[in-house]
Amino acid sequence: MVKNMKNTFDPAKIIQLQAFCAEANTIAVVSHTNPDGDAIGSGLALSAFLRGLGYDVRFFVPNRFPKFLAFIPGSERVEIYAEACESARAYIADADLIVCSDFNQVGRLDKMTDAIEANVIAPRVLIDHHMNPPEYELSFSDTGYSSTAHMVYDLICAWSGPEAVTSEMAVALYVGIVTDTGNLSYGNLTPDLYRAVAGLVEKGVRPVEISKAIFNTQSESRLRMVGYLLSEKMKVDCGLRTAYITLTRAEKTRFNHQIGDTEGIVNMPLTIECVDFSAMFIETLDCIKISFRSQGDFDVNLFAREYFNGGGHKNAAGGRYYGPMGEAVARFEEIVKTVHPEY
Amino acid sequence: MVKNMKNTFDPAKIIQLQAFCAEANTIAVVSHTNPDGDAIGSGLALSAFLRGLGYDVRFFVPNRFPKFLAFIPGSERVEIYAEACESARAYIADADLIVCSDFNQVGRLDKMTDAIEANVIAPRVLIDHHMNPPEYELSFSDTGYSSTAHMVYDLICAWSGPEAVTSEMAVALYVGIVTDTGNLSYGNLTPDLYRAVAGLVEKGVRPVEISKAIFNTQSESRLRMVGYLLSEKMKVDCGLRTAYITLTRAEKTRFNHQIGDTEGIVNMPLTIECVDFSAMFIETLDCIKISFRSQGDFDVNLFAREYFNGGGHKNAAGGRYYGPMGEAVARFEEIVKTVHPEY
Repeated sequence: MVKNMKNTFDPAKIIQLQAFCAEANTIAVVSHTNPDGDAIGSGLALSAFLRGLGYDVRFFVPNRFPKFLAFIPGSERVEIYAEACESARAYIADADLIVCSDFNQVGRLDKMTDAIEANVIAPRVLIDHHMNPPEYELSFSDTGYSSTAHMVYDLICAWSGPEAVTSEMAVALYVGIVTDTGNLSYGNLTPDLYRAVAGLVEKGVRPVEISKAIFNTQSESRLRMVGYLLSEKMKVDCGLRTAYITLTRAEKTRFNHQIGDTEGIVNMPLTIECVDFSAMFIETLDCIKISFRSQGDFDVNLFAREYFNGGGHKNAAGGRYYGPMGEAVARFEEIVKTVHPEY
Repeated sequence: MVKNMKNTFDPAKIIQLQAFCAEANTIAVVSHTNPDGDAIGSGLALSAFLRGLGYDVRFFVPNRFPKFLAFIPGSERVEIYAEACESARAYIADADLIVCSDFNQVGRLDKMTDAIEANVIAPRVLIDHHMNPPEYELSFSDTGYSSTAHMVYDLICAWSGPEAVTSEMAVALYVGIVTDTGNLSYGNLTPDLYRAVAGLVEKGVRPVEISKAIFNTQSESRLRMVGYLLSEKMKVDCGLRTAYITLTRAEKTRFNHQIGDTEGIVNMPLTIECVDFSAMFIETLDCIKISFRSQGDFDVNLFAREYFNGGGHKNAAGGRYYGPMGEAVARFEEIVKTVHPEY
């Protein structure tokens, strides 16, 4: 903790942030489109902390967040830009300080981008753990953190000490950490991270209940769909260390598919011993959406960029194919054969 | 940490343990039949620690441990009683101190029980987190711990300080902790536990790699079997909040079933919103083996005891039915209807 906090949350930067806040009548905290657990958790905790210090703070995200995050205390205060555009636009336009949390590109803010760009006076503060941070007046940016929520925890500790973390903030921060690390199974799992979690549990977080709320609540039809895809629709090529799954629109209908139901399925073939590259093809109205996952050295960001109009991270990326499912899969199979010898 | 260590590992007890060890030329560390990650991890770390202090220590388990634990450093030193009976029996018979790790009933030691009971001179030391500990000369017993490995960590810290934990011991202890808590998703997830994990990661444990080695390495046919069972063989009754899965011998053959392949499947229906009682029926040569899992108040230990010749814990138990699969399932369906109104 000491090391990261020294680098990322050193006293001079905290003092600068305090000065920005002290000069602000209104503060807008904003996070990214399709907000996930870390976006919502870190944004909620940060705004609750600043509000607790007496500041006028509102927290905006461009569009809705998944229902399963609604149990986070205070989540009713998250403002959805797409659904209350006028009020949000007015507040952001007049805000004296804009805090950008958990994103690296303003392009990730969708229609909210304009509102933020329209405010040319307020300084921007960044708190984020992604690569390529934008240049802001004040940046807390560190890719060594597994989640922005862990950064917000350290920020609060550096500003006010751990006693300033309320039990509500603790739940929000814990959600951010466990969603961005798959319940502490991937990412930068540093000693500091576990110590931060210890601190949050000390505040009353109940990890077992939260894990269940986040990771273990699905419909019967979703679980049946997963079973069907693994047993009937998964192709495995151990020679190429590759697997893929396809899901058609008809199958989505058959399993009463809801938004979020395909989440995580692309990771499942990676649990097979001989597989370290996995793809999932999902038929939509206008294209085949494809998710790619890898473990180890194979770079699916490059793969998605080069062959499937997409991109992302080294081990997790997405792309699209404009054409029928059969073509998309045939193209994939052909390409994998040629790129496989490279890795 | 302080609280548990004060109660469970108070200085007087540590001094007594040190005295026992100082008087011993040979120490036998023993753990339970069908040793799991916590049995192997805590036993390995404990014996490595005592060996490091200069004692002559050997670590015995009654039978083989799962292959996926073989990556733990030093696992080649675990002695399998069933496979090297003579040497083990002689050592245990003459040992000056017997340390019983991670079990609550000597009956869990199978044929090794005799060897231990034959030694009527050596004092017994217990280190364990299960209920109903036996009465030994010296007991470190605390059900507040999620794993014996966490207890061994605290024991080493109380005896010699955290610097005595080597990177090899750290891996073994981390394995014990994550296997007994389902990668920190159930059990007593206390602040102390996360701090212990932080300490282990500081020693060089790589959680992502270990999680993968333990939780994410299965055969293609096992994953296909899981898919098939979820899509074709799972019955869900939302009204009774109950689900069950059946697996016949023919299906085991079809999916090239290996020992351990059914592990964890009974938990999967519990991820369905409307399910809090799950059963899995597995046909064997001589009976139908049944696993029960629940969440919340329904006591599957009592259920298994009363109706299916079994028992276990409140939320995880097992039983048997002597008869064909169809009968076992019919009986189950009938009983569930009658007991359901009680919970």
